[in-house]
Amino acid sequence: MRIGVLTGGGDCPGLNAVIRAVVKTAVTDYGMEVWGVKDGYRGLVEEELIPLGIEQVAGILPKGGTILGTSNRDSPFRYGIKVNGQYVYSDQSDKVLHVIDQYKLEALIVIGGDGTLTIGQKLSEKGVNVIGVPKTIDNDLSATDVTFGFDTAVTTAVEAIDKLHTTAESHHRVMIVEVMGRDAGWIALHAGLAGGADVILIPEIPFTIEAACKKIAERNERGRHFSIIVAAEGAVPLGGTPVTSGVNEGNIYNPLKLGGIGKFVQEKIVELSGHETRVTVLGHLQRGGSPTPFDRILATRYGTAAVRALARGEKVSMVCLRGQDVTTVPLIEAIKQLKQVPPQGDLVKTAKSMGISFGEPQES
Amino acid sequence: MRIGVLTGGGDCPGLNAVIRAVVKTAVTDYGMEVWGVKDGYRGLVEEELIPLGIEQVAGILPKGGTILGTSNRDSPFRYGIKVNGQYVYSDQSDKVLHVIDQYKLEALIVIGGDGTLTIGQKLSEKGVNVIGVPKTIDNDLSATDVTFGFDTAVTTAVEAIDKLHTTAESHHRVMIVEVMGRDAGWIALHAGLAGGADVILIPEIPFTIEAACKKIAERNERGRHFSIIVAAEGAVPLGGTPVTSGVNEGNIYNPLKLGGIGKFVQEKIVELSGHETRVTVLGHLQRGGSPTPFDRILATRYGTAAVRALARGEKVSMVCLRGQDVTTVPLIEAIKQLKQVPPQGDLVKTAKSMGISFGEPQES
Amino acid sequence: MRIGVLTGGGDCPGLNAVIRAVVKTAVTDYGMEVWGVKDGYRGLVEEELIPLGIEQVAGILPKGGTILGTSNRDSPFRYGIKVNGQYVYSDQSDKVLHVIDQYKLEALIVIGGDGTLTIGQKLSEKGVNVIGVPKTIDNDLSATDVTFGFDTAVTTAVEAIDKLHTTAESHHRVMIVEVMGRDAGWIALHAGLAGGADVILIPEIPFTIEAACKKIAERNERGRHFSIIVAAEGAVPLGGTPVTSGVNEGNIYNPLKLGGIGKFVQEKIVELSGHETRVTVLGHLQRGGSPTPFDRILATRYGTAAVRALARGEKVSMVCLRGQDVTTVPLIEAIKQLKQVPPQGDLVKTAKSMGISFGEPQES
Amino acid sequence: MRIGVLTGGGDCPGLNAVIRAVVKTAVTDYGMEVWGVKDGYRGLVEEELIPLGIEQVAGILPKGGTILGTSNRDSPFRYGIKVNGQYVYSDQSDKVLHVIDQYKLEALIVIGGDGTLTIGQKLSEKGVNVIGVPKTIDNDLSATDVTFGFDTAVTTAVEAIDKLHTTAESHHRVMIVEVMGRDAGWIALHAGLAGGADVILIPEIPFTIEAACKKIAERNERGRHFSIIVAAEGAVPLGGTPVTSGVNEGNIYNPLKLGGIGKFVQEKIVELSGHETRVTVLGHLQRGGSPTPFDRILATRYGTAAVRALARGEKVSMVCLRGQDVTTVPLIEAIKQLKQVPPQGDLVKTAKSMGISFGEPQES
Repeated sequence: MRIGVLTGGGDCPGLNAVIRAVVKTAVTDYGMEVWGVKDGYRGLVEEELIPLGIEQVAGILPKGGTILGTSNRDSPFRYGIKVNGQYVYSDQSDKVLHVIDQYKLEALIVIGGDGTLTIGQKLSEKGVNVIGVPKTIDNDLSATDVTFGFDTAVTTAVEAIDKLHTTAESHHRVMIVEVMGRDAGWIALHAGLAGGADVILIPEIPFTIEAACKKIAERNERGRHFSIIVAAEGAVPLGGTPVTSGVNEGNIYNPLKLGGIGKFVQEKIVELSGHETRVTVLGHLQRGGSPTPFDRILATRYGTAAVRALARGEKVSMVCLRGQDVTTVPLIEAIKQLKQVPPQGDLVKTAKSMGISFGEPQES
Repeated sequence: MRIGVLTGGGDCPGLNAVIRAVVKTAVTDYGMEVWGVKDGYRGLVEEELIPLGIEQVAGILPKGGTILGTSNRDSPFRYGIKVNGQYVYSDQSDKVLHVIDQYKLEALIVIGGDGTLTIGQKLSEKGVNVIGVPKTIDNDLSATDVTFGFDTAVTTAVEAIDKLHTTAESHHRVMIVEVMGRDAGWIALHAGLAGGADVILIPEIPFTIEAACKKIAERNERGRHFSIIVAAEGAVPLGGTPVTSGVNEGNIYNPLKLGGIGKFVQEKIVELSGHETRVTVLGHLQRGGSPTPFDRILATRYGTAAVRALARGEKVSMVCLRGQDVTTVPLIEAIKQLKQVPPQGDLVKTAKSMGISFGEPQES
Repeated sequence: MRIGVLTGGGDCPGLNAVIRAVVKTAVTDYGMEVWGVKDGYRGLVEEELIPLGIEQVAGILPKGGTILGTSNRDSPFRYGIKVNGQYVYSDQSDKVLHVIDQYKLEALIVIGGDGTLTIGQKLSEKGVNVIGVPKTIDNDLSATDVTFGFDTAVTTAVEAIDKLHTTAESHHRVMIVEVMGRDAGWIALHAGLAGGADVILIPEIPFTIEAACKKIAERNERGRHFSIIVAAEGAVPLGGTPVTSGVNEGNIYNPLKLGGIGKFVQEKIVELSGHETRVTVLGHLQRGGSPTPFDRILATRYGTAAVRALARGEKVSMVCLRGQDVTTVPLIEAIKQLKQVPPQGDLVKTAKSMGISFGEPQES
Repeated sequence: MRIGVLTGGGDCPGLNAVIRAVVKTAVTDYGMEVWGVKDGYRGLVEEELIPLGIEQVAGILPKGGTILGTSNRDSPFRYGIKVNGQYVYSDQSDKVLHVIDQYKLEALIVIGGDGTLTIGQKLSEKGVNVIGVPKTIDNDLSATDVTFGFDTAVTTAVEAIDKLHTTAESHHRVMIVEVMGRDAGWIALHAGLAGGADVILIPEIPFTIEAACKKIAERNERGRHFSIIVAAEGAVPLGGTPVTSGVNEGNIYNPLKLGGIGKFVQEKIVELSGHETRVTVLGHLQRGGSPTPFDRILATRYGTAAVRALARGEKVSMVCLRGQDVTTVPLIEAIKQLKQVPPQGDLVKTAKSMGISFGEPQES
């Protein structure tokens, strides 16, 4: 059996660990042959594939990035080619089928987010066997309990908050840390809880600056002349529209044109309270670096599970984590089911017990 | 309501996070008063307690160790006092009841392992309300899915393995890393998987040196003139008795008197294969340092849950994690139920798919 | 002998190490009494001083920030007090002399940058004994070979570049990292060299976008479809005016109002080459965190040397590092002597040998 | 011009950075051709050389180890070959000259310690042009101010001490950390100063256990019921013989057969004071891992300087750091000039001002 593997979409620590696990499991356990597709689906259109054996994946487990490369916007169903400096789009999916046929690939393992998986689903409808491996650093996919890369992103954010803490305290400042999370506040919630934040702003709980400032003022009264605010990029002021900073890949919307939620909150706090306030946008730092042990293990389990699913005859599904078990679900069900932070859930409640404000209006 | 909190047994990253969460939740959510007991149960015998308010726990979330101190062997039921250079033991549990009464403590939150929790259970039988918070860096307690400190220990072990990897490769060496795990191999299994080990030795799977050497030889043939072996301190050679290095606290048994499993394996490999081999014993490094975000959050949830359990009237139970939820179980059921690595479980299978040997005799 | 110690200006890893060394040396070696002044010179005007003994400085060596607090703009010679929401300024230097007298302080050790040292010099002209300890994270002071905090800032920057490297490579991107350095490019030069950057932009070498793009294009041709650019915040386009992002403390000038050099370069590269480009502004992350061993040792040596200078009767000087030796220079000579990167120096030449472009026009 | 480059002896963070700088400088600045010799001098005997171009050194700057491999004991002048399970030694230096001739190598750059450089010197006496790059993680070479790898080793040691600190404090323990340094105590001195140790034991200052215990007792009296001891592996009890743990490469002598200085000191402290004491041997962890920015820059400068020396016609010399400048010295003068810690130097004095004991008998 010959299979192909590709990575698509934004960077995420653990991609190489998945690729390595796919190759090792396929080659060692099942005697399969594995081809790596370069730069996401682009490699299937442009016929750029490389053979992947045990040697090719040696030593990549701890490395960030993906040895296969990736692309963000190269759907074979609407494939852009530059003609006279302008992109002209056309459907190249038959070309992809042709290449798959030519390379005798009996299945594809596609590692990616919504976009990548949706294209996988569409290819499966054209007869390609596709196993998806979910990748979202935001951990916002309801079909799986946790996604790889998330723990690393949270760790990077907490290291940053730890660093900013001492400066905030010495200089009596409000420090805002803008983290990823366009549609869900998981990174902000986890990083805020672990970093000892005072205010956490997430898309799921509309906030008011007044409530945030009230928290800062309360701390001042107790002699704590500094505060840490962790803001998800998709956090929304009450009655407002989402303000994003374009850190995420894909369709970026930024109605308020404010240069990001961090900057927005900074300006409003200075306006309202006069408190010296600084903002740090973590951006791509959260997507890079060596994956944490947790992410390396989860990514490895995903890669192994994807190959096993193929070996037992699954034709179109997605691997996922449920409790302690890695299993599979139908691919179509898995796509685009957003998992948001439940505002009444235990994590938010625990955060409130820690004295953390979510900027809810009733607080002010 | 007035409560006491203490920490007992070996060090574990996240103890301070639990203490902080206990105090913050108790004071803020329920208006309780919290007293910290110094150095485990010793502080209850010697009447060393300090009031803990929000100020006392400010800034301790990221810190290793415990601000309360701890002791390993000071059971009030068999309390040792030095008389003429010799320890004389007596039952001081009534003294403890008296002190609890005197300080008007309506409940104790005891954070610790088997020993600490067992004493808590015995105190509860004398009428003290006791909520246990489980602490075992080895993650070997069946009553809870995960314990805090484990993720930090694994992270420290993986950082060490990452460092040793390049040296092993450059110098064509076998590198043995001895990690904690007297009765269960969780740290070794996770660290080995995440660190890209070639051989993992755990208490649950008796090993032979021959099988380990076979793996090393196979790698040599493929031009990989180095190997990484991760050995849990309690790993047992087939037909042998456990060999421990005394890294863990408590009752240390070391029948073979060999200076630890790492040293033992090193000598046997050199004997059998002549391969240049080095051993690193991580020891206490695994118990120290700032807790990872995962551990900070879990420890915080445990602390909050313990106070909530008291608030809703529980009298003798232990907090634990089940899936994504923190809940409680009867304390007596929780104690000493060892959770070992299932040799047929998915993690071990995944490790084998990665080409990792567990030194099983059939391999050689 | 009684002395006072204060910290002024922006945050810098190692401040606590200096304070600890001052206290330990003063108390242990000379039996002096030490008073800590809160929040820079503000504490001398407002009479906020605390006694500092060995206990007060225990455990602060590895900590970022300063236990004394600091302020940026509170010169006693032009001291601002808020009256009806408006700052009214007056000379409070006599008040300071009075407080110094009242507390019987025979000398001040002032740890800070230009601003803080200049005020120290002016106080010395009014009869106060002042020993300065230089603090500039930019390492841009000619009176000393190295300043503490610099090594930590470079380390933070290199960790960030290491993280961004894999993403850049996987995603075929130009990654711009904006680091501190308004007047001197030391951080950018060191971080760029250590991080394996392709382009380094510093204030000392005016750059053109064309030259930077030429480097990117050359790499593309060699199949390296990504590049790393490290830009000091004070880097200046040829013929342009400095563009700063206001990360630094003090008088911020930003004539081009461009949101920082990183953003400026990003826009120009996209304009000129169309290459997908991302910018990360490290900002305050560089000022926080635990100091590196190098900085802890240097800061400790500075603190000890400052007390020894007092003990041997120096009245107005600054400690500094010359080669391997810590010595002192007259304070007035030390202030404001900027040390810039020599464009023909060995470090720049070595960087060029590594293939690094400085965006010099002759290259394009 | 064609040159060869090899790495010999024990591992040291920064080796890859030197190799990369040699290749980049040679190829880009001088149009030289570079051949990498595998596994130290062994590759010259066995004719294992690989061409090294810019591509081969891409991405290796942050990596530990050496892409060329190394060997410890393969001198061409006494080269061991296994015959019937026994090593038979012979002079293979003429074979080496032949291989150098055959590959048309006009010079060798040899990166290594005493052993490697001495062989280089001997080869130069047979007519080979040799530029040495000094490598000693112990920083104990008098011909150069600092060697690469040292800063990384100290950083690893300090991270370990930081981790052990909280455990020591929580558990009222004496923690001994054994670090490298057979003949010189630089790592112990720097790590002890930066880690806030209480006792530092180095080869240059014979110690007594009594003095160390006195320090521990003094701390106990002040309520500090824990102490940190940093011991260089070559530290010597007064009147005793060096006790080494065999962590270092090369000729290991261990007259007291005590399993290392750490274990020795532990047993003696327990014997004398009864204080609970734990020992951690860092061993190879200090030789691995990604080099610090400081080491990456120094290693890069060394590599560049070695090529430049060849280019300007030097035939047998060693690169070194003097103050801020990288220069060269005659190879023969550089070898084996040990640089030890001056017991009356400023670093030791500063350490004493910090209250650190060196176990000197007059203290007890």
